[in-house]
Amino acid sequence: MRNSTKQYSKDNLFFLPLGGAGEIGMNLNLYGTQGKWLMVDLGVTFTQELGLEVLMPDPQFIVENRRDLVGLVLTHAHEDHIGAVGHLWNKLRCPIYATPFTAALVRAKLQEAGVLKEATVHEIPLSGAFELGPFALSYVTLTHSIPEPNALIIKTKAGTIVHTGDWKIDTDPLIGKATDTEALTRLGDEGVLALVCDSTNVFEKGHTGSEADVRKHLIPLVAKQKGRVVIACFASNVARLATAFEAAKETGRRVALVGRSLHRMVDAARACGYIKANDLVKENEIKNIPPEELLLICTGSQGEPRAALARIAARQHPGVHLEEGDTVIFSSRRIPGNEPQIKVVQEALLMRGVNLITDKDAHIHVSGHPSRGDLKDMYTWVRPQILVPVHGELTHMREQARWGKKCGIPQSIVPQNGQIIALCTDNLGIVDEVPFGRIALDGMELVPSRGPMIRDRAKLSSGGVISVSVRLTKGRLKDAIQLVCVGVVEKEQEAALRQEILDEITGLLHLATKEKLENETALKDLLSSCVRRTVNAFKGKKPVVITHVFYG
Amino acid sequence: MRNSTKQYSKDNLFFLPLGGAGEIGMNLNLYGTQGKWLMVDLGVTFTQELGLEVLMPDPQFIVENRRDLVGLVLTHAHEDHIGAVGHLWNKLRCPIYATPFTAALVRAKLQEAGVLKEATVHEIPLSGAFELGPFALSYVTLTHSIPEPNALIIKTKAGTIVHTGDWKIDTDPLIGKATDTEALTRLGDEGVLALVCDSTNVFEKGHTGSEADVRKHLIPLVAKQKGRVVIACFASNVARLATAFEAAKETGRRVALVGRSLHRMVDAARACGYIKANDLVKENEIKNIPPEELLLICTGSQGEPRAALARIAARQHPGVHLEEGDTVIFSSRRIPGNEPQIKVVQEALLMRGVNLITDKDAHIHVSGHPSRGDLKDMYTWVRPQILVPVHGELTHMREQARWGKKCGIPQSIVPQNGQIIALCTDNLGIVDEVPFGRIALDGMELVPSRGPMIRDRAKLSSGGVISVSVRLTKGRLKDAIQLVCVGVVEKEQEAALRQEILDEITGLLHLATKEKLENETALKDLLSSCVRRTVNAFKGKKPVVITHVFYG
Repeated sequence: MRNSTKQYSKDNLFFLPLGGAGEIGMNLNLYGTQGKWLMVDLGVTFTQELGLEVLMPDPQFIVENRRDLVGLVLTHAHEDHIGAVGHLWNKLRCPIYATPFTAALVRAKLQEAGVLKEATVHEIPLSGAFELGPFALSYVTLTHSIPEPNALIIKTKAGTIVHTGDWKIDTDPLIGKATDTEALTRLGDEGVLALVCDSTNVFEKGHTGSEADVRKHLIPLVAKQKGRVVIACFASNVARLATAFEAAKETGRRVALVGRSLHRMVDAARACGYIKANDLVKENEIKNIPPEELLLICTGSQGEPRAALARIAARQHPGVHLEEGDTVIFSSRRIPGNEPQIKVVQEALLMRGVNLITDKDAHIHVSGHPSRGDLKDMYTWVRPQILVPVHGELTHMREQARWGKKCGIPQSIVPQNGQIIALCTDNLGIVDEVPFGRIALDGMELVPSRGPMIRDRAKLSSGGVISVSVRLTKGRLKDAIQLVCVGVVEKEQEAALRQEILDEITGLLHLATKEKLENETALKDLLSSCVRRTVNAFKGKKPVVITHVFYG
Repeated sequence: MRNSTKQYSKDNLFFLPLGGAGEIGMNLNLYGTQGKWLMVDLGVTFTQELGLEVLMPDPQFIVENRRDLVGLVLTHAHEDHIGAVGHLWNKLRCPIYATPFTAALVRAKLQEAGVLKEATVHEIPLSGAFELGPFALSYVTLTHSIPEPNALIIKTKAGTIVHTGDWKIDTDPLIGKATDTEALTRLGDEGVLALVCDSTNVFEKGHTGSEADVRKHLIPLVAKQKGRVVIACFASNVARLATAFEAAKETGRRVALVGRSLHRMVDAARACGYIKANDLVKENEIKNIPPEELLLICTGSQGEPRAALARIAARQHPGVHLEEGDTVIFSSRRIPGNEPQIKVVQEALLMRGVNLITDKDAHIHVSGHPSRGDLKDMYTWVRPQILVPVHGELTHMREQARWGKKCGIPQSIVPQNGQIIALCTDNLGIVDEVPFGRIALDGMELVPSRGPMIRDRAKLSSGGVISVSVRLTKGRLKDAIQLVCVGVVEKEQEAALRQEILDEITGLLHLATKEKLENETALKDLLSSCVRRTVNAFKGKKPVVITHVFYG
C-alpha cells in the first residue's frame, strides 16, 4: 500500500468512497486535492449476524494518511452517515464539522465512546461556510427525513463539487426550511464540476412527495381510532414526530415516547428548537392513562427484536400493554430484508386483536430520497459537468448514471468502494485502487467483519462444539476422559453420542504408537479428527473440536 | 395430552392444521371424523439459521394417534406440501396417495430417506377417486405453477370439503389441463360444507394471469440477447422450463440445466410425459458451446448461497463462466426476506458486466396463487357454507375471510396451528387445542427448532467459546492451565486475553478454600464465572465456557 497520496498531481481533484458506493448504508466519502483529504460522513450499517451489532467501513487508507486529513464534515445525522464517528474517532483524531442538530447527536456519540473531551466538534450554522486546507466549504439546506439535511459544497482550484448527502424535494417539510433552490441555481450559474448524488430511489417515477401530505392523512386516521394508538416510525423523522404530537393535540390524546432512540432524538430536536414536546407521559405512567386518551410513539417499525414494538408485541414490555381495540400504525416502509422480523411483530399484534394499519392501507409514509423527478430538478439547478451516483447498490447507481445522461449531464462515472477517481472533465476515470473493507463492532471491540474470528463463530453456530480432555501416563489413560458437548445434539441423544465418542477415543489410544501418544500436536489432531468422524457418522455433521492433553 | 380423539362426537367433521395456518410454508392439515384422521400434505420451510436446513411441523399429535390415521394424501409436489414426507414417514408409517408426477417426486424422497421399500405410494390418476375409512376422496385438476396441482374433495357423512391446495386460474397453463371448472360447479350444485383455501395472494386485485402470457414475453426477450442467456427460475415450474426450451428452439440455442433440483424435476416431468427435453447440453460440455448458441436454465433465483446461480456469480462454478455481454433473466419473484442474498448475487453479476433482467423490467414471471378475482370465481363455483382460509400469514387469512364474506360466503373461520375446529354450520368453532411446534433437520437428525441445542448454538454464534482445563494436586495447580478460545477475539488480541484469564484463574485458585477446590462442581462454576467476567471486562461480551478439572 502507498504511504502518501502526494503522488496525485497537485491540482487535480479526486473522489474516493470507502463505504456507501454499491450499498445503501455506511457512507464514507473522501475528497482529495493538493495532497490533502477531506472526509464527508462516517456511517454504519446494522446487522444481527453472529453477535455483531453494526458494520462500518474500514478506514485503513485514511488512517495511514491521517496527517493529510483536514477534517470530517457531516451532512446530516442519520446513522448511515454519522454512526461510526464514536467508534472510529480514535483512529482518525481529526476535527468534526456539522450543523447544530447533527452536532448535538454526534456529541452524544463521542460521549458514549468516551472521547468527547478530546474531540472537537465545530458547529456550523445552516448555510454556513468554512475552509479546511485547500477546500472551501459551505452547506446548502436541502430536505430529507431528519432535521438539517445539508448538501456540502466543496470548492477547490480544480472546480466545485455539490455533494448532496441524502435528500428529496419537499416543498413543505414541516420542520426546517424547504430546499434552498436559489443557492443551488446560483452554484449552477457559477459552474459545477461534479454532482455526487443519492441514488436510493432512482427507480421511482415522479416526485417523492412531502411530509405535509403524510400529516394530512395521519391526523384523520388517528381521529378515527378508539383505543390506544401506537405510531411506529423512525425516531429521526422529527417532522413525523411533530405530526404525531399534532394528531394527539387534535384528538385529545397525550403522547408517550417508547424507545430510547426517540428520547435521544426528541432531546436534540428540542435543544435546537425544532419541537416543543411538553407534557409527555412518562413510560411508567402509561398504564394510568385511559386507552382513548393515549398516543404512543414507538421505535421498532422494522421489527427489530430488541426495540420497543417487538417487546410490546411479545408482551415483554413492562410499561405498555396492548389489547383488542388498540391500533398500531406503521408510519414507515419495510426495509428490504426486514420483512420476516416485521411479520413476526405484526402477526403477534394481530393475534392479540390489535388493528394494524400500514402504508399499504393509507398514505402514512413518504420516503426521504429523490425520485426521478426530484433528481431531474436537481440536475437542472446544478447543471454539473460530471454526475457521480453514490448511496445505492450498483443497480441504483448505474440507473442514475443512465438517468443523468438522459437529462443532459455530459459525463458520469459509477464509483466502487476503494476506487480513487479523478474528477476531471478531460480525463474522468479511475486512477488507483486502495484497500477497503468492513469492520464490525463486537461487544466493545472493532473486528474485521469476515475475519477468522467470525468464520469460527459461523462454524460454532452451525455444528456446536465438543471439548475433550485426556490425561496420559506412560501411554495409558490415567483417568476418565472428560468430554463436554455444547450445541451438538439434543440432551436425549447426548449419552449415546458420548458413549460412541469415548469408545472410539479409547480404541484409538489403545492402538496408537507410543510416538504418536507422546507428540502432543499429533495426539490432539488424532483426537480431534476421531471426534469429528464419530459425530459425523452419528448425525451427519461435524462440530468444532477442542482438545486438551495432560501428561504424567 | 389426550390419547384418543374418539372423544369428538362420531359424525362431526373436524379440521386441524399443524402447519401452514399463520405461515406460508410447511403445510400439514388433518381432517377427522368418526374417530379417524386423514392427513393432507406434509411440507417443509427452508431456513439457514444456526446450521439447520429445513423446518417442518411437529406431527406429535398424529403420531400419538397413528392407529386412527387412514393415510396421507398429497395435493401437489411443491416442497411446502411434500418436503417432509421422507423425514417424517418413519414416525407415521401410513399409506401415501398422490397423482403420478407428485408420486414420482415423493418416491425419490422416500428413496433418499431409505424407506422407499417399506412405504406404499398409491398413484391416483388425475380426477381419480378413492376411499380411506370414512373419507370418500377425489382429485379435481386445478392450475398452479407445477404440473398436477389438485384440489382434494373430501366427502364425509358430515358434508363435503373442497381443500384447494395451491392454485390460481390459468386458462392456458401450457402443461396439463386448465382448471376443471365443471367439476367444481358440480360440487357446488351438490352442496359444499367448507372450502379450505389458499390465501397467499389475497391482497392482489384482479386475476393472477397465465403462464402463456409469460411465454409471449420471455421468448422475444431471449431472441434480443447476444451472448449467453441464463434463465433463473423455480425448478418445479415445468411450464416455465418448457417455455425456456421453446425459446431456445426459436433462437437457435441449445439448453443446459444447471442445478440438481432441475434435473430431478425434468426427469419426473419427462417420465410423466409433460416435456421431451431432448438434446440437453451436459454441464461439462457447456464451455464448448459458443455463447450465442447457449441457453442455461439455472437454480438459485432466490440467491440461495449454495445454488448454481450464486456459485456462477461468485465464479465458483466449475462448468459455467459468465462475462460481459451475457444476460441473466430472473424469471421469478423475490420471496420476502430473500432480498439481501438475491442482491449479493445480482450485484456480483453486474460487477462482471452481465446484463440483468428481472420482473421489474418485463412480464417474465407470474404467480401461482389466486388473486381476489380468482378467489371470487372459486367461491362462485363451489358456493361453500363455510370458508376456511389457510396457506397464509394471519393477515392473509383474515383478509380472505373478509373477502369471502363480501363475496357472500355465509360463515368463515381463521384457524391457527394446533386448533381443532368443528366444521359445522350451526356450531362452527374451536373445540380443542393440541400441541404443535416445529422440528428441524440438523444433519441427519430431527431436532426441536427452538430446543436447548439450538439455544446453545445461538450463544456460541454470538460470543464464541473458551475451554479451560486444570489439574490440581493437593489444592495446587500441577501444571500449566490449558486454555483454548474459538470465535472470541481476533488472533492479535488472543495473547493479551489469554494472559488476563490465566492471571485471574491463578489468583482465584490461590485464594479459594480447600473445600471449594475439592468440590469439582463448585470449582467448575468458579472457573466458568471467572472466565466470563474477565472476557466481559476485556471486550464487553461473554463467551460460552467449558471447564475440565483433573485431580491428583
